[in-house]
Amino acid sequence: MAALSLFLDVPLTTEVNWLLDAYQQDPSPHKVYLDHRDCQTETGKAWDYPPVSQTLLQISTDPTLDHEDLPELGFSAFTRAATELALGRESRALVENRAGSVHTIGGTGAVRTTEAARGPWRCTWPCRSGPAPLSAPADSLRCIFQDVGFTELRSYHYWDTARLAVAAEEFLQVLESAPEGSIVMLHAPEETGLTPKQWEDVARVMGKKRLFPFFDVPAQGLASGDLDRDAWALRHFVAQGFELLCAQSFSKTFGLYDERVGNLIVVARDSGSLVRICSQLQEQVRATWASPTSLGARVIATVLSNPALRNKWKQSLRALVEKILLIREKLKAKLRLLGTPGCWEHLTAQVGTRSFTGLLPSQVAFLERSHIYLRPDGQFSLCSINAHNLDYVARSIHEAVCGSV
Amino acid sequence: MAALSLFLDVPLTTEVNWLLDAYQQDPSPHKVYLDHRDCQTETGKAWDYPPVSQTLLQISTDPTLDHEDLPELGFSAFTRAATELALGRESRALVENRAGSVHTIGGTGAVRTTEAARGPWRCTWPCRSGPAPLSAPADSLRCIFQDVGFTELRSYHYWDTARLAVAAEEFLQVLESAPEGSIVMLHAPEETGLTPKQWEDVARVMGKKRLFPFFDVPAQGLASGDLDRDAWALRHFVAQGFELLCAQSFSKTFGLYDERVGNLIVVARDSGSLVRICSQLQEQVRATWASPTSLGARVIATVLSNPALRNKWKQSLRALVEKILLIREKLKAKLRLLGTPGCWEHLTAQVGTRSFTGLLPSQVAFLERSHIYLRPDGQFSLCSINAHNLDYVARSIHEAVCGSV
Repeated sequence: MAALSLFLDVPLTTEVNWLLDAYQQDPSPHKVYLDHRDCQTETGKAWDYPPVSQTLLQISTDPTLDHEDLPELGFSAFTRAATELALGRESRALVENRAGSVHTIGGTGAVRTTEAARGPWRCTWPCRSGPAPLSAPADSLRCIFQDVGFTELRSYHYWDTARLAVAAEEFLQVLESAPEGSIVMLHAPEETGLTPKQWEDVARVMGKKRLFPFFDVPAQGLASGDLDRDAWALRHFVAQGFELLCAQSFSKTFGLYDERVGNLIVVARDSGSLVRICSQLQEQVRATWASPTSLGARVIATVLSNPALRNKWKQSLRALVEKILLIREKLKAKLRLLGTPGCWEHLTAQVGTRSFTGLLPSQVAFLERSHIYLRPDGQFSLCSINAHNLDYVARSIHEAVCGSV
Repeated sequence: MAALSLFLDVPLTTEVNWLLDAYQQDPSPHKVYLDHRDCQTETGKAWDYPPVSQTLLQISTDPTLDHEDLPELGFSAFTRAATELALGRESRALVENRAGSVHTIGGTGAVRTTEAARGPWRCTWPCRSGPAPLSAPADSLRCIFQDVGFTELRSYHYWDTARLAVAAEEFLQVLESAPEGSIVMLHAPEETGLTPKQWEDVARVMGKKRLFPFFDVPAQGLASGDLDRDAWALRHFVAQGFELLCAQSFSKTFGLYDERVGNLIVVARDSGSLVRICSQLQEQVRATWASPTSLGARVIATVLSNPALRNKWKQSLRALVEKILLIREKLKAKLRLLGTPGCWEHLTAQVGTRSFTGLLPSQVAFLERSHIYLRPDGQFSLCSINAHNLDYVARSIHEAVCGSV
C-alpha cells in the first residue's frame, strides 16, 4: 500500500457558518445570536403548534401504519395538500392538470431536485440557452446553484439600505437588464414587502424578458398571518400563464424542523409537459435519496386535510405572527425611549420572521463587540429576540448607533 | 407570454421499474412479485423488530425531545454507533481518529453524497486520474454514478450462471484488467458468498492495482445472522490500510424503510485527510438536503447503545435470518419432491435476502407468463416467498425448467 493519502490534495472547504461559529466560541454570558432559522418561544424553544404535536403523537402511536418505503415522488396526500395550499384549491393550473409536485427533503432538497433540469447530461431546461440565475441574497440557495454547475450567479436586492424601504424600482431595473431566459429566484416573496401592484410590474417585466420564475417559499402564512394573502405573488404569476417552479418548506410553519419536509411544485403550460418534467424529477430523486421520509409529510397532510385541525393550526400560525409583530413594536418602542438617533418605523413596516435592522456594517461590527451576532447586511431574525434579551439588544443597538454617528 | 412550453424539448425518461409495473398491471389473482426490497413476514407485512417498535414509540412520545434541525453531518450518537457497528468498536482506524462518517438520507443518499468527490468543480478524489467505477449489477447505484457524470461504467459479476457458484476467479480477473485507480463498488459484500480467503485475494489485487474500494452495505447481519461475521471483508480492507468509503443502510435491519436512515463512512490514511474530506461532504450535504431527518437515527442510536435493546434486536435479526434459511430449505425440498431437473443446492448454499435462482432468461420469461415476476438474471428476494405462494412458485419453476429442457 502507498504511504500517502489518496485524499492528499482534497482542500478544506472555506464555506462555514462563521457567524454561528463566532457566537458559539464567545464565552460571554450576555451573548445573543440574532440569526436563528427557527421560530422560537420566549424560552428559546421552537414554537409549538398544538394541532401538529397532537397529530404527530397520534400518527406515531398508530399501530395500523407501516414503515414501508414511500414512492419516489413521495406521499401523494401531502403533495396534493401542499400544492393546493400554495396555488389555491381552485387554481386553473390544478384544474387543467398542468401543476404537479414532488415531495422532497426540505426546501433545500426541493431546489436541489431541479438539478434534473440542469446537468449537461440532461436537457437544459428551464433556461434553454442556459443563462445564469439571479438570486436574492440567500446563501443556502447560492451554494446549490453553484454546486449544480452555474458558474455565473448574479445577486439582486429588494431593500434600499439608505431609504430603509423596499427597493422595487431597483429590482425592476435589475430584471430589465438580466439576460433573456435567466432563472430568477424569488426567495420568500411574502416577506419582501412588495405590494400586489409592484408584483404585477415584476411579472410584466419577467414576461417581456422571458425570465423564468423560481419561487422559494419558506414560510407561507408567517408574513401576514393569512395563507392566501402570503401566496398572492405566486398565484398572480400562475394566473398570468407563467411556467414556474416553487420550492416550499414546512419547517417554520409546522415546527417540524428535524422532519425536513419540502415540496417542489411545477407549473407547466400543458399536462403533457408536466408528465415529462416530473419523469425527469423522479429520476433525479431516484439518484439522490431514492424516496423521501414519511412522518412529517403524514402529519402535515393530516392537519391540512382535517378542517378542525387545519383551523387550529391557522390560529396557532396567527398567534405566532402576532407575537412577531409585538416584538417589532417593543423593539421600536425601546429604541424611541432610549432616544436612539434615526427613524425606526421600518422595524414595524416590514413583515415576516426576518427583517433588515437598517444598521450599517460598522454598527453590526460594533454589536459583535457587545456579543450580539447578526449578518453584516443588518438582517436579523425577529424570533431570536425575547423578553430576556430585548433590553440588552435595544441598548446595544442604541450604543452602536450613537457610537458611529 | 409565448404559447409554447419552455419544457417542450424535455424528454420522458426511459428508466422505469418495468418489473414492478408489469406486476402491478397483471390482473391475475395468482400473481407473485419476487423482487421486494423489504423483508416481509408471512402476511406480506414488513418484518417487525420488537425493540425497534418499542423504542420508536418511546421516542415519539417523549415530550422532552425537540424538533430542531440536526447538524449538517447528522445525529452524532447515531453516526458513531453505526460506524462502530461496521468497523468494530476496536478498529484501528477509529482509535487513530481517521475514520468518520456522515448521517445521510438512506444508503442512496450515502452514495450520492460522495458526489462531493467527483464534480468537475471540485477536486476529483477518490480517483485522481478519474477512471470509471466498476460496479456489480445494482441498478440504483449505476444511476447515481451516471448522474454525477461517470460516462463509463463497467460491470462485473461474482456469480457463475453455468456452475451455479461464486465466480471468484472471474472477479479477480476483472479487477486485474481494470484501469489503475478505478473505484470498485463492493455491493452487499456479506451476500456475495466470497470466503475470507477469496476476500484476501481481492484486497491483494486491489492494493496492487490501486483500486479504490467503495463498500455498499445494505443489510449487515442479515447474511449470517452475525454482525461481526458479515463485516469481515470491510474490516479486512481497513486492517490492510486501505482508504475507503462505505455506504450503510438500516432499512432492512431495523425495518424503518420510510425513515431512510443511512450513513457514509470514510476511512482515510490520517486524521488531517479525514477532516478535509468531511468538510467537502458537509458542503455537499448543505447543497443537497441541508441536514438529515432525525427520528429513525434516534431510534437506531438508542437501540445500538442500550445493551438490553441491542441484544433483543440481535435476536430479532437472527430470527429473520433463520426464517430466510427455512424458506431456502423449503423451496429446495419442494423442487426435489416435484423432481425438477437440475441440482438446487445453490439455493441453500447462498446467504442473505437475495439470491440467484439459477434460472435462465427464457425460464424467467416462462415464469412471467405464469404471473411470477423476477429479474431477467434470475435473481430474486427470498423475503418475497411465503406460505401462501411457496407451492405456486415451486410448481411454476418446475414447469419452467421442464418446459425448456
